[in-house]
Amino acid sequence: MTAKPLNDLLNWRYATKKMDPSKAVPQEKVDAIIEAIRMAPTSSGTQPFEMFVVSNPDVRSKIAEAAGGQAQITDGSHVLVFAAWDNYTAERIDEVVSLNVEARGDLPMLHAYYDNLKSNYLPRDAETNYAHAARQAYIALGIALVAAAEQEVDSTPMEGFDPDAVDAILGLKERGLRSVVLMPLGYRDPAGDWLLPMDKVRKSHDAIITEVN
Amino acid sequence: MTAKPLNDLLNWRYATKKMDPSKAVPQEKVDAIIEAIRMAPTSSGTQPFEMFVVSNPDVRSKIAEAAGGQAQITDGSHVLVFAAWDNYTAERIDEVVSLNVEARGDLPMLHAYYDNLKSNYLPRDAETNYAHAARQAYIALGIALVAAAEQEVDSTPMEGFDPDAVDAILGLKERGLRSVVLMPLGYRDPAGDWLLPMDKVRKSHDAIITEVN
Repeated sequence: MTAKPLNDLLNWRYATKKMDPSKAVPQEKVDAIIEAIRMAPTSSGTQPFEMFVVSNPDVRSKIAEAAGGQAQITDGSHVLVFAAWDNYTAERIDEVVSLNVEARGDLPMLHAYYDNLKSNYLPRDAETNYAHAARQAYIALGIALVAAAEQEVDSTPMEGFDPDAVDAILGLKERGLRSVVLMPLGYRDPAGDWLLPMDKVRKSHDAIITEVN
Repeated sequence: MTAKPLNDLLNWRYATKKMDPSKAVPQEKVDAIIEAIRMAPTSSGTQPFEMFVVSNPDVRSKIAEAAGGQAQITDGSHVLVFAAWDNYTAERIDEVVSLNVEARGDLPMLHAYYDNLKSNYLPRDAETNYAHAARQAYIALGIALVAAAEQEVDSTPMEGFDPDAVDAILGLKERGLRSVVLMPLGYRDPAGDWLLPMDKVRKSHDAIITEVN
C-alpha cells in the first residue's frame, strides 16, 4: 500500500451513513487502526482510556439499540468503543510510572513529575478527571479516523448513544470506565449512502483562522 | 515530499521539550497544518472552535508566561491556540445551516437535522456545551499532530496553561471563545532536548484493548 498525503485521507473519509453488510474489515486493517490509537499521544502519557473492539453481532445489535438504531454499527463489521477512565487514581498513575521506569530508567525527575501530577489530579472530583480523560480519547479518535482512511476503511464517529446503556452492555462501570464515543468500521455502500455524493462542507480558512503576526 | 505511513509519523513525533530558536517554520508548512485542522471532522459538522496562529514574539512571550514559562512557545516560531465556542447558540448553528445549504442545496432534511440539534443543544447550560465543543477541538488536535509530523515540523501539545490569562491575551472572551489547548510549532534542538533520546512509552496492546468477538 502506498502511503497517501494526510490531506487526501481527510478528503476521502466521510461519516459513512450506509455500510455494506456483506463486507468485513480484515483483521490486519483493524489491527493497524488500533495500533494508531495505541500510539496516539495523551496528556502526560497516561493513556487514560481503553478500547473495546466489538465484532460480535449480538453485542453490536445491543449497542446499535443503545444508539437509536444507527445501522452502521450492525452493517459494518466492527465497532470501536472508546472508554475513558472514570477517574484518575493513585494506582492508575503508579502503573504509568512503572511503565516509564521500565522504558526510561528509575529517574528521580520521572517520579517528581508524576508526584506533581497526582497532587493536581487526585484532589479533583471524578467528573473533572473523567472529562479530562475523555478529551484524551478524542485525540485518539482524530488519529483513528485518519488511520481508518489510510486503510481505506470507512468509519463513522458517533456521539449519539446512551452511554449508561453501552457501559452496561460492555460491563464498563465495574472496570472504572465510561463509554465516550463509538466508531463503527466497515465499507461504504455507494448505492445506499445519501451522504456520499454530497459535497463536503467546511468553513473557509478565514472564518476560523486568525493570524496574530 | 513523499507521503509517509501514519505509523511512521506517530513514531517520529514526540512532545518536543526544547526547540531551536534559530529556525522558523515556513508559512507553507503552517498552512498545511492549518488546512488539516480545517478539514478535521466535528460533531454534526459544526466546527465549534477557532484557531489562533500566533507568530508575534511579544504575544508569544505573554502566552508563555501564562503557561508557566514553557519555552517551546517562544523558542518555536508559532503557537496554535485552539479556542472553542463558549456555548452553542442559534446564530452559530444557523451559520452552519447556511453553509450546508450553500454546498448541498436547501434540503428539508438538513433543516430538520439542525432544528433537532438546536432543540438538544440550546437548553443545555453553557459549560456542557463548551465541554462538547472542546472535545471537537481535540479531534482536530490529534489530526494537527499528525499534520505537523507529515510536514516534519515539531510540536508540543500543551494543556498546562492558565486559560483565563490566554483568553485575555487574545481577546477570546469578547468573541465567545475559550482557549482549550496550545500547540507550539518549531524545530527540535537535538542537543538540548532531554526527551528526544528516550524511548517512547506506550502501554501494550493487551493493556488497553479488549476484543469482543
